[in-house]
This record gives sequence, structure tokens and C-alpha cells, in this order.
Amino acid sequence: MGNTVSIGLLGLGVVGSGVIKLIESHQEELIHQLGCEVNVKSVLIRNLEKARNVEIDRTFLTTNPDDIINDPDIDVIVEVMGGIDETYHHILQAFAAKKHVVTANKDLVALHGTALEKAARQNKCDFYYEASVAGGIPILRGISDGLSSDRIQKVMGIVNGTTNYILTKMSNEGVSYENALMEAQELGFAEADPTADVEGLDAARKMAILGRLAFSTDIALEDVEVSGIKNLELADLQYGEKFGYTMKLIGYAQCSDQQIEVSVQPTLLSKEHPLADVKNEYNAVYVYGEAVGETMFYGPGAGSLPTATAVVSDLVTVIKNMRLGVCGKHSLEARFEKHLRSSDQRSGQYYLRIHVKDRVGAFSEISTLFNDLNISFKRILQTPIKKRELAEIIVVTHHTTLHNFQDALNQLHNLDVVLQIKSYYKVEGDAAHELAGTTKKL
Amino acid sequence: MGNTVSIGLLGLGVVGSGVIKLIESHQEELIHQLGCEVNVKSVLIRNLEKARNVEIDRTFLTTNPDDIINDPDIDVIVEVMGGIDETYHHILQAFAAKKHVVTANKDLVALHGTALEKAARQNKCDFYYEASVAGGIPILRGISDGLSSDRIQKVMGIVNGTTNYILTKMSNEGVSYENALMEAQELGFAEADPTADVEGLDAARKMAILGRLAFSTDIALEDVEVSGIKNLELADLQYGEKFGYTMKLIGYAQCSDQQIEVSVQPTLLSKEHPLADVKNEYNAVYVYGEAVGETMFYGPGAGSLPTATAVVSDLVTVIKNMRLGVCGKHSLEARFEKHLRSSDQRSGQYYLRIHVKDRVGAFSEISTLFNDLNISFKRILQTPIKKRELAEIIVVTHHTTLHNFQDALNQLHNLDVVLQIKSYYKVEGDAAHELAGTTKKL
Repeated sequence: MGNTVSIGLLGLGVVGSGVIKLIESHQEELIHQLGCEVNVKSVLIRNLEKARNVEIDRTFLTTNPDDIINDPDIDVIVEVMGGIDETYHHILQAFAAKKHVVTANKDLVALHGTALEKAARQNKCDFYYEASVAGGIPILRGISDGLSSDRIQKVMGIVNGTTNYILTKMSNEGVSYENALMEAQELGFAEADPTADVEGLDAARKMAILGRLAFSTDIALEDVEVSGIKNLELADLQYGEKFGYTMKLIGYAQCSDQQIEVSVQPTLLSKEHPLADVKNEYNAVYVYGEAVGETMFYGPGAGSLPTATAVVSDLVTVIKNMRLGVCGKHSLEARFEKHLRSSDQRSGQYYLRIHVKDRVGAFSEISTLFNDLNISFKRILQTPIKKRELAEIIVVTHHTTLHNFQDALNQLHNLDVVLQIKSYYKVEGDAAHELAGTTKKL
Repeated sequence: MGNTVSIGLLGLGVVGSGVIKLIESHQEELIHQLGCEVNVKSVLIRNLEKARNVEIDRTFLTTNPDDIINDPDIDVIVEVMGGIDETYHHILQAFAAKKHVVTANKDLVALHGTALEKAARQNKCDFYYEASVAGGIPILRGISDGLSSDRIQKVMGIVNGTTNYILTKMSNEGVSYENALMEAQELGFAEADPTADVEGLDAARKMAILGRLAFSTDIALEDVEVSGIKNLELADLQYGEKFGYTMKLIGYAQCSDQQIEVSVQPTLLSKEHPLADVKNEYNAVYVYGEAVGETMFYGPGAGSLPTATAVVSDLVTVIKNMRLGVCGKHSLEARFEKHLRSSDQRSGQYYLRIHVKDRVGAFSEISTLFNDLNISFKRILQTPIKKRELAEIIVVTHHTTLHNFQDALNQLHNLDVVLQIKSYYKVEGDAAHELAGTTKKL
């Protein structure tokens, strides 16, 4: 290994150029920590002609991945090119060539993380991916090292900056989803095609990775139930506000009695919950451990340099492992079989907004329906909308099973008095209120 | 080492019994992670007759530290007995006997951390102390591993649960310091003798440890400027509230141009700052890194099981290092010489409340004084207190040097129009407001 560790970089986009800048500007710190220099030897790019926002000698650039994967001088490969199939292939080849891999690629890790961990283990290679979840926040380390002595019961995350920015705008300034999205795009917090973000897929990928780590179980991307924020109406944010909730896109992973549920959905979060104050493009991950109780890790979820810090921290770990001769010994293998919770095993509180005919006894019919299903209300608000001769009813239920709540929705459809089910959302973090005795019927 | 690692425990108080409970209840997880059993072989206590809130075979108990330190079967010593001189001696002996040490003792690490790191290094032993700062929050790991590729510029912490509980009560319920303290004592969040907490000494110890780690500099406890919360008046919390600030006991460690300042003082924190929402007995540490930007780690700062999770996580790290044969290689040696910043190199915003004679031109005299010192005001509030024929003036300055502000205080004393300087506090986190253009003169 000598006095220099050589790195091959796959990709030179936003994160890749951040990695190069960080390695260059922190060379002294790296030498101090590692006792050796870190040198980016070659960089895989697609287009040799494209202008780059980082200074790099053109002779280091290549368009042929084999130049890097088969270079015997290169010890560690940093994958920041994105994409799935081609990239997966490169990384498997890298492991076969006994190279350690650091990646920031959440799409890839969400889909093939388990297979990649296995390939790394078989080749005695290191495989780290801190940057794949919540950018600059060292959350994977927090879970795997810092809380290694605890049993994690719940992970809740605001793990997509784009949607959190949009929801913050909608909440604070009362602008519509469309306008908030447009502003996010102008400021570079949302991409031209925001689909993966606003439909919750990006957050789902991160929750699959977090759930896998927290519960030591092979959670697949398709195990994550996903709904996005595209159809959110301001009215629901504003009613939520009245009840003491903030609308957030919450990634939720919970495990008890070996039963797991993982979801990403717009959620009305109690303002008392630590995640409720996470604003704008920031990310945060809340972890509830049996022994430690509530912890939360907050920081930037994206951006060139923040994400690069996570990549380079992983690189530091790999090089330390190399120097200590302990590579390939930290990989994670799932300990538990996967048992996903069915809808009658899931429980929660739910917010529901419906339009009913404005006539005597309307609410009574609805409350009877819920009562028959053993669902009680924590909060009720009924407002007449005179000009349309209807009434808007908002309820927040006490804890009930998802199955029962879905039953209620189905039966509501059949009630003559119900004009339209406008919206329904999960409610989280309300327990503190309950305990503090501040529950009020409106 | 075989299939069991034996631990000696010094102390069996709140944290010690948590450690035993956690090791017992997590044996299966520990075996999975470590490939060996973890066994608490002996426990040092003072009084063999005292009742314990954890089940333990009396034959494991000893009152003689040598039974543990010189036991060749014991590999790791967990120190949770507290105290300084005697404990320091035990740990040095433990290193001499080639035993690894995990401690939760902030008093000891704040005073002798550097010497203990050195002794560990010389004996090729591990020395970890995650639990010494902010209980269950894995903040030392967050700084040393997670952010290892960054340059940390600022660490701000709410690192004392007792004072944060008291300040939360005062802010939210308008109760006096004395009453809030009494309630904290009743609930077990404050000790019978709360001196070390309310005078800021406990927080200062943690800030010395955090600063040392963040800036790789030997910061001594006496380098931390400390003032506590004993003399806080509700009026200042309430004026702060009006201006958009929350009063918090903030540990502050900042490094730029190789100049360091570390302090613990009651601070009016902008409500936009992530630390402003940390309530009750919770702790949080905010870290600003050059590349990563803002991150924050939140969680329980004390308590038997939360603190025990940090201790056992350290234990897991030590045992992993043992099995990998890499003990004694992670110790931290300060890289930089210490240069403390003098008062004319320190700058900040300050809140000041004074009583002046209620006469024409009073404020003008004061504003001239500040103007001559090149200090400008960001916020001003003047209220007549008729029945006492005086006026209360509150100002918040723009950024100025501490030296200039202290000059202003001295000169105010000499102004005939000034009756009394009631209070002054540092203001933090206001920059966001400034940038957002929401600055207003009241």
C-alpha cells in the first residue's frame, strides 16, 4: 500500500466533483488520520469534452471502466455515477478484482444492497454507502455503531429534501403544491422531472436501506408502501395546523414482535414531535431504541459537499480498515427472516376529511358507522359550506387498526349522506399530547 | 480470548445497573455482532450490604479494586463509579495491566482526558468515553467518524438536561427559576445539590471534551468560560420571546484561523436555530462543518438505560477491536497547539437590559455611547415603568467584538442617566433572520 492509497472515481457529477474538492482540500487532515496520502488516480466519465466544475488534469479521465476496475494500483472505487444495471455490473466486477467500494447510490443499494453486501463479503472487500441515505448526516453509522447495543423499534425519517421544501412552503406561506414545486425547481431543490421525489420513491429507497440496517432484515424496495405528495391540498395542511399537526412526508419503519412495516406517506405529525421542526430542504432521521429512547439525527440531505463528506468519511473508514488489515469484516448480513405486517396488524391514528349533505343527523350517521367498527374520535370539526349546501367534516381517530379504518372508508362510500371522501392521512406523534392530558374535542 | 469476553465493572449505581441489564437482555445481539459472549465477571462496590435495583449474584461483588484490575481473566474495565482522583488512579492501573477501559465519567475525562488517552496509547489499550457527553447520543462517534472528512468550525450544545428542563419550564409556563428548579428536583431531573448543573460546570466539562475532539486541540476545563442560569430573571426570557429568541444554556466551541473559544453561558437563541426546539431534559449537539454545513444530534442526555447504551456501544467497539487485533490504534492525539481567542478577537451579538431615568434624551445619550464604540442596534425596545419613574431599555446589538461590548458596559456604569444594568446575554443564530431580510427595528 505504501504511502499513497489510490482511488478510482466512477462519475464526475455533483457529488463526484465534491469528492475531488474535499480530498484535495483535506489532504493534510487525511494524512494525519490515515498516515498516508489519498490520491484520485482516474475518473470514469461519459463525455471527455464536457466542461467540469472542478479542476482536474484531463489525463486522469477515461471513458472505459476497465481502466479503473482492472488497474492494479487502485485500491478503492468510489461510485458516484448513479444508475442501476450498468453500475451494479461495475461494482460486482470491482469486488471480483478485490477492490473496496464506497457508493452514494441509493437506487442501487435499495435494489441490490443485499447482493452487494454478499459479494463484498465473499471477496473480503469493504462496502460502505453512508451517502446513500440523508446525504451529510452520518445516520447509517449512528445506527450500526452508535446504537449497536440497543434494539431499534422505530425509524422515522424526513429523507427527501425536495418534498420537505415543498411542504414547508405550503405550510408556512400557504402556497399551492404546484407553486411550491415551481419555486423548488427554480432554487435547484427539485429536479426538472420531480417524479421520483414527489411520488415518494426516493424516500422509499432510503427507508428500505434504513429498515434493513435497523432491523437486520432483508427489506426489499417493494416492501415499502408508498404514497407521494402530488395530490395534497392546502386545506388539509391548514386543518392539520388547527389540530396541532404539521404535514410531512414521513418514512416510517417499525418493528415489534418480529413483525415489520415500512412505508412512505404524507403524515400529519404532532408539532411536539422532534421531526416536526425540520424545515425546508433539511433531512432528519428519528430513531426510537428500546433502551436509548428517542434520538434524532439532523442535517443536509443532499448537495455536493455535504454528500461528499459522507463519501469521504466512508473512504477514511475503508483506508483505516486497509491499514489495520480488517477489510471485509464489517459487512452486514440479515439476522432475521422477514415478516411483513398485514393491514389488520397495523394500527395508527387517522385524519379524514369528507363532504356530507348538510342535513340533520348527517354526523350522527357517520359517527354510528365508526362506532360500530369500534373506532373512536379524538378530534371532530364540522363546518357548513353554505353556498354548496354541504358540510365539511374532519375527524382524527384514536388508535385503530388500518384494516378497520379501511373498512370505515369502504362503508362511508355507500352512505347516502356522504358526498365525497376528500382525503385521509396517517397521524403520528400524538401520544405526547395524550399523556399530557391536553386532548380536546373541538 | 475464547468465546467469552469478561468485563469488570467499577461502580453499580444508576449507569452501572443499566449496563448490567443491557448486557443481559442483549446477549443474543452481542453474540451475533461479536461472535462471543460478554460476561460481567466482577463489580466493584463500596457497600456489600446496600440493596441494588439489579439482580446480581453477591459473589460477583467486591470492595477491592485490585480484584478486578489484577484479574487476568478480565479484558475490559467499565468505569461507572464517578469521582476523580481515586478513579483516575484505578484507570491508570488498568492501562498498566493492559486492560481496555470504557468510561462514562465526564468529570474525569474533562480533567484528565489527554493524560488518559496518552496512557492508553502507551499501553496499546483502547479508551472510549462516548457516554461522558450527552448520554445516549452517539455524538463523539458522530464527530470522530461520521464527520472525519470535514473541518468542524463550530459545536454548540445543549448538554445539560437539568438546566434545559428548568429553562423550558420557565419559558413555557412562566414560572420562576426557583420553582422550576424545585419541580425538576421532584421529578428527578435535578439533584438535591444542583450546583454543578445550574452553574454550568457540568456543561463546561462536556464542552471541553467536545472541543478537544472537534478541533484536535488540548482544551482544558479552565479554558471554558462559564456562567450559569441561577440569576436568570423571567423578564429576560419574556423580552427574548418578543424578539424571537429562546433562552438556552448553550455550550459554544468555535474555531477559526486556529483561534479557539469555548464557553458555556445562558444565550438568547434565535427560534430559527435547530437547537431552539430542544425541550425539557433532552440534549442536542449542533455541529457546523465547513463542507457538511449544519448537522444536529438529538437525544436523551442522561438516564440509566440511555447512558448504558453509549457505554455498551463503546464496549462493542472495544471487543470488535480486540477480535480484529487493532486495539490501541484509535486514540486521539491533539494535532494543533492551543490558541485561545482574546475578548477583542471574540465577536457576537448581545442583548442588554438597563434601567434609566425616565427623562427626555435618556435613550439618545445611550445610543451615542454605543455609536461612539461603533456598535449598532438591531432591535430596540423602551418601556416606561411609571410607578418607579424609570424606563426599561432593551437592545440587541448587531455583531460587535466582546471587547467593545464590555467597554460599553463599563461606560454605561458611569452615565448619570443609567440607574442599573439589569442583565446582558449573548445572542446566537440570528444570521438566518438577517439574511432573510426580516430584521426589524421595534
